[in-house]
Amino acid sequence: MEENSNKAKMHSPISERMGFVALMILQIILFMLFAVFVRYGKAALPAEVPGLFQEHVSKYPHFQDVHVMIFVGFGFLMTFLKKYGYSATGYTLFMSALIIQWTILVKGFFHMYDGKIELSLEHIIHSDISAAVPLISMGVLLGRTTPIQLLFMALFEIILFAVNEYVTLEVLSICDVGGSITVHAFGAYFGLAVSFMLRPKKEENEPGQYEAPTYTSDLFAMIGTLFLWIYWPSFNSVLADGTAQELTAFVLSTMMSHEKKLDMVHVQNSTLAGGVAVGTVCNLMIGGHGAILIGILAGSLSVIGYRYVTFRNRSKVLLGRNRTISYHKTHKQLRDRNRLDISSQAIVIVYAKLRLHDTCGVHNLHGMPGIIAGLGSIVYAYLATKEDYKYDLGAIFPAMASQPKNLTSNHIIGGYERSARAQAGFQLFGLFMTIIIAIVGGLIVGLVLRCTCFRKLQKEEQHQDELYWEVPEQKSE
Amino acid sequence: MEENSNKAKMHSPISERMGFVALMILQIILFMLFAVFVRYGKAALPAEVPGLFQEHVSKYPHFQDVHVMIFVGFGFLMTFLKKYGYSATGYTLFMSALIIQWTILVKGFFHMYDGKIELSLEHIIHSDISAAVPLISMGVLLGRTTPIQLLFMALFEIILFAVNEYVTLEVLSICDVGGSITVHAFGAYFGLAVSFMLRPKKEENEPGQYEAPTYTSDLFAMIGTLFLWIYWPSFNSVLADGTAQELTAFVLSTMMSHEKKLDMVHVQNSTLAGGVAVGTVCNLMIGGHGAILIGILAGSLSVIGYRYVTFRNRSKVLLGRNRTISYHKTHKQLRDRNRLDISSQAIVIVYAKLRLHDTCGVHNLHGMPGIIAGLGSIVYAYLATKEDYKYDLGAIFPAMASQPKNLTSNHIIGGYERSARAQAGFQLFGLFMTIIIAIVGGLIVGLVLRCTCFRKLQKEEQHQDELYWEVPEQKSE
Amino acid sequence: MEENSNKAKMHSPISERMGFVALMILQIILFMLFAVFVRYGKAALPAEVPGLFQEHVSKYPHFQDVHVMIFVGFGFLMTFLKKYGYSATGYTLFMSALIIQWTILVKGFFHMYDGKIELSLEHIIHSDISAAVPLISMGVLLGRTTPIQLLFMALFEIILFAVNEYVTLEVLSICDVGGSITVHAFGAYFGLAVSFMLRPKKEENEPGQYEAPTYTSDLFAMIGTLFLWIYWPSFNSVLADGTAQELTAFVLSTMMSHEKKLDMVHVQNSTLAGGVAVGTVCNLMIGGHGAILIGILAGSLSVIGYRYVTFRNRSKVLLGRNRTISYHKTHKQLRDRNRLDISSQAIVIVYAKLRLHDTCGVHNLHGMPGIIAGLGSIVYAYLATKEDYKYDLGAIFPAMASQPKNLTSNHIIGGYERSARAQAGFQLFGLFMTIIIAIVGGLIVGLVLRCTCFRKLQKEEQHQDELYWEVPEQKSE
Repeated sequence: MEENSNKAKMHSPISERMGFVALMILQIILFMLFAVFVRYGKAALPAEVPGLFQEHVSKYPHFQDVHVMIFVGFGFLMTFLKKYGYSATGYTLFMSALIIQWTILVKGFFHMYDGKIELSLEHIIHSDISAAVPLISMGVLLGRTTPIQLLFMALFEIILFAVNEYVTLEVLSICDVGGSITVHAFGAYFGLAVSFMLRPKKEENEPGQYEAPTYTSDLFAMIGTLFLWIYWPSFNSVLADGTAQELTAFVLSTMMSHEKKLDMVHVQNSTLAGGVAVGTVCNLMIGGHGAILIGILAGSLSVIGYRYVTFRNRSKVLLGRNRTISYHKTHKQLRDRNRLDISSQAIVIVYAKLRLHDTCGVHNLHGMPGIIAGLGSIVYAYLATKEDYKYDLGAIFPAMASQPKNLTSNHIIGGYERSARAQAGFQLFGLFMTIIIAIVGGLIVGLVLRCTCFRKLQKEEQHQDELYWEVPEQKSE
Repeated sequence: MEENSNKAKMHSPISERMGFVALMILQIILFMLFAVFVRYGKAALPAEVPGLFQEHVSKYPHFQDVHVMIFVGFGFLMTFLKKYGYSATGYTLFMSALIIQWTILVKGFFHMYDGKIELSLEHIIHSDISAAVPLISMGVLLGRTTPIQLLFMALFEIILFAVNEYVTLEVLSICDVGGSITVHAFGAYFGLAVSFMLRPKKEENEPGQYEAPTYTSDLFAMIGTLFLWIYWPSFNSVLADGTAQELTAFVLSTMMSHEKKLDMVHVQNSTLAGGVAVGTVCNLMIGGHGAILIGILAGSLSVIGYRYVTFRNRSKVLLGRNRTISYHKTHKQLRDRNRLDISSQAIVIVYAKLRLHDTCGVHNLHGMPGIIAGLGSIVYAYLATKEDYKYDLGAIFPAMASQPKNLTSNHIIGGYERSARAQAGFQLFGLFMTIIIAIVGGLIVGLVLRCTCFRKLQKEEQHQDELYWEVPEQKSE
Repeated sequence: MEENSNKAKMHSPISERMGFVALMILQIILFMLFAVFVRYGKAALPAEVPGLFQEHVSKYPHFQDVHVMIFVGFGFLMTFLKKYGYSATGYTLFMSALIIQWTILVKGFFHMYDGKIELSLEHIIHSDISAAVPLISMGVLLGRTTPIQLLFMALFEIILFAVNEYVTLEVLSICDVGGSITVHAFGAYFGLAVSFMLRPKKEENEPGQYEAPTYTSDLFAMIGTLFLWIYWPSFNSVLADGTAQELTAFVLSTMMSHEKKLDMVHVQNSTLAGGVAVGTVCNLMIGGHGAILIGILAGSLSVIGYRYVTFRNRSKVLLGRNRTISYHKTHKQLRDRNRLDISSQAIVIVYAKLRLHDTCGVHNLHGMPGIIAGLGSIVYAYLATKEDYKYDLGAIFPAMASQPKNLTSNHIIGGYERSARAQAGFQLFGLFMTIIIAIVGGLIVGLVLRCTCFRKLQKEEQHQDELYWEVPEQKSE
């Protein structure tokens, strides 16, 4: 401990202070861009006639729900590591605050009106939701990057995200109301690609010293889990009765877990997988039973993923009592004990060989469920008929309607009278393109982070707050 | 510790895995029932004409408030035990998710339309509120049952609850807007009856080894307390200015506590008693002072209950520093020190003789305040006049109106022109019947749990997560 | 530890029980005042015609947001001390519940109608917001007073606050929509004045033994921080896109902190400073960039304040690893290491000489940002034109309109056709008057608390729960 912190101090160079000066400059640049390009939208301007208060009132509670998800939900979900709680909540706060400003600008450039970006509550809600994208990628890398690396990644990621979202939703006109494809799958595969570029050297390919929870840190993570779960329907924007998913996750968790016990990690993350998986299709006619079915599928896959695919990364967590057993021995033991079938073994080997770390198991929580959502949307789009959806068809699939859909006065989409079959094809293409853009973008960003002058964390500096935070001297439990 | 967990492993039989297979099958059965019986209600269907969005918007924030209460509120309220935090939050999540689905079906069967249950936001809100019923009963039993036992209890309890609610609210047409009678009193006495059947053997009638809080676990419980308290008016469905109750509880807490100190247990639970007590009458003309008076009464009774009636169960908590003193000696000491009056002594003896454990003190938080609410509703119903309530009379007491009240198109209640005196009589009968049904139902369920093949927890397995959860090896504070 | 608690027991006199009897009497007096003076307002009364439900629905989510801020936000924000979590959350709950009742009465007396105070949701929201005032003052004194002292202070402070608010908002008709002047600055300077009167003896002028956080307590405080931050726009009552402030705080925090690390204290408190600073002007035409600029200013000042002005009080926190170094030596060391410029040194010396303790750094979080908000409002009022504000001018600056503004039927303000320049002058005068009243009032209350029979806490009794709470015996982490 003492040596660690001494070492940390030695590593803490002038460049750190420079990094934060850069941050301050970035904030001032954002201020100037706002001054030049942003003005209040009509709805936020003083009323020329009364009665415009209404829009604000009706969307405001929604806005606050998403806000709670981003700041309390994501922030506390990532506090599960024993010595990384300050960073998890602090970086979430600082990243999101910056990213929301940045996204207002980046997304605004696609819909400028008279050379200005119009600021409305809806625009801020969209930017709030976008803040989830780099937070998801941050979950993959949690504890293995500096805040400056995270910030660089986030700035670049948001640009790519905005381009991809513009193309998929407005050019291709696919349906993705809960953002499962464009937000969750994008963020997950982008983060995994960055993580691949930042993979550890072969001889360091072991779980970090502090990569494990405590009893208290897991309860803090449960705060995040519950608030994310509660407000998920707000994120998915409609009445979605997704109470099924986490029961399934719960059941699966026990069925999968060796020693037949419940694992807090499964509960924390798998409960949320159903919410992601139902996102894209949640305004379609899936019915209560459809929601439950998607929940069962997503929860099952998520827990299976944790058990067989990701255990490389969380083995310290799973091991618990067997700390003294060396890592490779344990790896083999676990494999034997669980009698992995051949395909699962293959995946485990790929993971081990790829050295692809995923601290929060984002692939199981956002990646795979996002793909499930995308596949589900293909099926439902294929089955969509004018008879089932009536007047809502144009709202849900604007491209299938004969009239374009007015988003704002200078912003219309759809109206191509596209067939259900064609729409299904577009959904597939959109899903495919999103994943490709995410992976390629992530590889590039990872390469930049790896090969340039960014300060990298040493193995023993990872997963702990001490390097960047004043931590009380007392045994941090 | 080591021995304990070894023992736990030995006890963990094949039947555990079977239990969770049964859970998965249950979830699949629920899925199939939804597929056959449930369809979206008109309000949730695609619009044939625009303008139906309104209902969703106006009730949605309410829905989220209740959701926060159920999952964050109840979940964290029960984390006060030092080694039972994972179970408290995890089981709350898993039970509620299942129960909400189950309640949609069970309550739906009472109001089927054309052979189908119509799914609406209102229906889901009602089911959410119903999830509180088994959670209240779970509070009585906290730490002394397996999750499978809890689940069995909940499934059966919901059926009885739905029947009782149907009879009291629709057949008898009594007023209970906040559910103090049908939700809180029912859940409390049902749980106490189950607890009575599961009472420990005479020689094991002592507080459990882990039946005590830590500093940190009590703060986690405070998260639950505060969110329950904050959103209580949402639960009670109307503007209820119930700020009085917890001041009283606070004051009483100190007045009662030996050594004249505040006890976190009192604050956590007694603050909420006022919310229960005001539930039934909160849409009646009680005035601000009426709310304060009910708060004073409920808070006082609740703290008195803790101090004199329930201390059997929490004595380990109250004792704190005197751990080494043997239980029976302490019991006597406490009795002497507090100079209990004769009636209180009698109750204590009944409790001690009955061996009726109540881990969370649910009787003080939900049982007694529910009865206060019921008694209050009798008084206010007796005093209700057409002059005071004007157009609202039919909404509040549908049976007293001359026109029946339309709940939905195929669902009307009331319109009997019942007198105020008769209404008061019906309120009394409804309260009485609810408690009887709860106690008889609880005794039956308890008998089944006791006498059949359900796995029971041994004394040393109680109040700790280890048996069913992967717990980090570190000192689990 | 043992000695401490023994000592605590010895100090706990009969007068404690008397104090709580007094509390109970106070609650009963409040009940009687409610019975005599308060009745439901028209909006809360049974409908004579349908349609009045609307007002309730539209303001209710707002109400709940403020409620979460007061009880969860303030409550948990103050849990950062290692042994004061029960008191922080418990006293917040008990003080607020009392104060909300008291404020309904005190503020109601200014607008009685027919000898009665009309209770409406809006009135309760205003009283909820007012509960923040004594909570802010409590932050200054945290851990150094008894609950009875706090309560006495709060009762008196609310009267002064209500008078000052009446004069500034209705007589002077200044604009302060988010309450930065009348709530935050008032509460901060009132608390600082009380703290000055309760300053320790020279020989005891050192940080308390328990005046430091733990890793866990700082994470609990983060719960409060995040909920306060999230719902701040609700407190400020309008769409305020204040995402800028805490980024700035974050950046500044690192720039200022010795050893170039982030400090949880800065994040917790400085993130909120921007919300205070934007409060007064948040319904003015400041634009997105204006909000960011105010955030940058407030966050910077707040962190600078922590670093150079308040470190006297939190030096134990800042020191962390250097516990063994004696206090005065460290003080000098810190001063040297940070090369304080002369003016900052002067302030530090004034602080050290004044012995003005400020446990939560309220001056940086509420005091200075409140003044910034007031100064900003002067500028914006000076620049306000009929062209910019159109129909909203009368709503924002009622005094500048030609028609008075109807708040309720018996309550109109403004309509003086005041010029922008005059309005700016009134804003300045209002700010000045508020601070004077707060300081003078605080000095008087402090004098009463110091010189009368109120029980005072000894140095070793401060900043710990044991004196008034049953604390679990286990090592309180």
